[in-house]
Amino acid sequence: MAFTPRTPRVVAARRLQRRRDRDATGRFLAEGPQAVREALARPGVVTELFGTPTALDRHPELAAAAAHADVPVSEVTDDGLAALAETVAPQGLVAVCRHLDVSLEQALSGAPRLVAVLAEIRDPGNAGTVLRTADAAGAGAVIFAGDAVDPYNGKCVRASAGSLFHVDVVRAPDPVTVVDALRAAGLSIFATTGYGDSDLDDMTDYGRLVGPTAWLFGSEAHGLPEELTAAADARVRVPLYGRAESLNLAAAAAVCLYASARAQR
Amino acid sequence: MAFTPRTPRVVAARRLQRRRDRDATGRFLAEGPQAVREALARPGVVTELFGTPTALDRHPELAAAAAHADVPVSEVTDDGLAALAETVAPQGLVAVCRHLDVSLEQALSGAPRLVAVLAEIRDPGNAGTVLRTADAAGAGAVIFAGDAVDPYNGKCVRASAGSLFHVDVVRAPDPVTVVDALRAAGLSIFATTGYGDSDLDDMTDYGRLVGPTAWLFGSEAHGLPEELTAAADARVRVPLYGRAESLNLAAAAAVCLYASARAQR
Repeated sequence: MAFTPRTPRVVAARRLQRRRDRDATGRFLAEGPQAVREALARPGVVTELFGTPTALDRHPELAAAAAHADVPVSEVTDDGLAALAETVAPQGLVAVCRHLDVSLEQALSGAPRLVAVLAEIRDPGNAGTVLRTADAAGAGAVIFAGDAVDPYNGKCVRASAGSLFHVDVVRAPDPVTVVDALRAAGLSIFATTGYGDSDLDDMTDYGRLVGPTAWLFGSEAHGLPEELTAAADARVRVPLYGRAESLNLAAAAAVCLYASARAQR
Repeated sequence: MAFTPRTPRVVAARRLQRRRDRDATGRFLAEGPQAVREALARPGVVTELFGTPTALDRHPELAAAAAHADVPVSEVTDDGLAALAETVAPQGLVAVCRHLDVSLEQALSGAPRLVAVLAEIRDPGNAGTVLRTADAAGAGAVIFAGDAVDPYNGKCVRASAGSLFHVDVVRAPDPVTVVDALRAAGLSIFATTGYGDSDLDDMTDYGRLVGPTAWLFGSEAHGLPEELTAAADARVRVPLYGRAESLNLAAAAAVCLYASARAQR
């Protein structure tokens, strides 16, 4: 019989919509077939899969992959699914996943040539979008530093469009320690700020983007903390060719990360 | 005496939150000091300014600019302002503005070297963000083509962060006519699509971004209409260096527009 919103396992999983319960259990929710597929591709991440009968019929390969990995698959009613999902059209599938962030040391042991640091970024949609863009640009690690949003926030997971499962995600409470560790690992540290004294085009022309690089991004509202812009090797502004006063975070991050990706080809 | 939500002029202005009334009157609302400042910088655009006494005190230069332009300035109560504003924290100012889009011919008469075409993009936040990014990259015109969002939608105006008042905005119902006109004006037409056969880095390396260029962007959900990708001079994909399946619209547009801006320096 299909689980309902009152079935204890559904009630327990639903609690993972709250950060407190994610932190306490080390679990989070990923919804929709794309996210579930990416999560199942990482061994040991998915601990339970909920799906409506219709969705499980439509995606037999996902149900099979779950079964093959000894992940329990539970049918839920439409109401049960709606209770687990945060979006209006979740396409019938929600997976309970283990947190998969790694330590900073572990991420750096892979010698990533491109790293994005989200410093004190609170908006989950912005954070997830930059995570997705960093993955697209070939970044090996994305670091949620300081008082940043929980990477397992549902909106962040959805905005990442699967990239949460592709790159090494790190959570580091102290951003300055992060900068020290990145520098010790041989990366150049570039802080993005509208008031930077280095122009991104000049940095490209002078070959400064060719080596391993970590980009520091701050929140749209507050920018980067002063101590971080001071600690960086350069303070970089994206050139404004027109009359806009600034770019939004997602656009600025895309331009910087792709400038690095192109320079590192 | 300050206007309230029931004052007829406030009631009339509030109706501009609806597209039907914007279309019928040729007016729209811009809220917050930044947008009001940019709107006032364009002669003849603002027809009325509403502000709380606190906000008008805080921005005496805006009240003075309005008075200097013979724009009526009306004090509103906090409730009156809340009725006019669509955001929770509108910072006390809302301007009624005249539509300012120009014809395609007029926009092309300025011989823009960079143009962004938003084809059938329905999401106002995405459209406004691309408008802002296009302005930052130095685009001379942004064309809302086909069944695209109303550029005067409040969310689009806010996401544009003032750029709606900086560049030539065009509304054109038929995207194919737009492509023909752009080509006749000497611009290369590049359609962005994840399935494009031309790589953006190759286009850059081969010098194809140096001349006047129009970029066609489609919606995240549906991409570009087939007839538009077929009509373009090249179908361009942003390279994916990592494992992400795609970029979101704002990020892809930023990478393409800035590749052009850099090539055209």
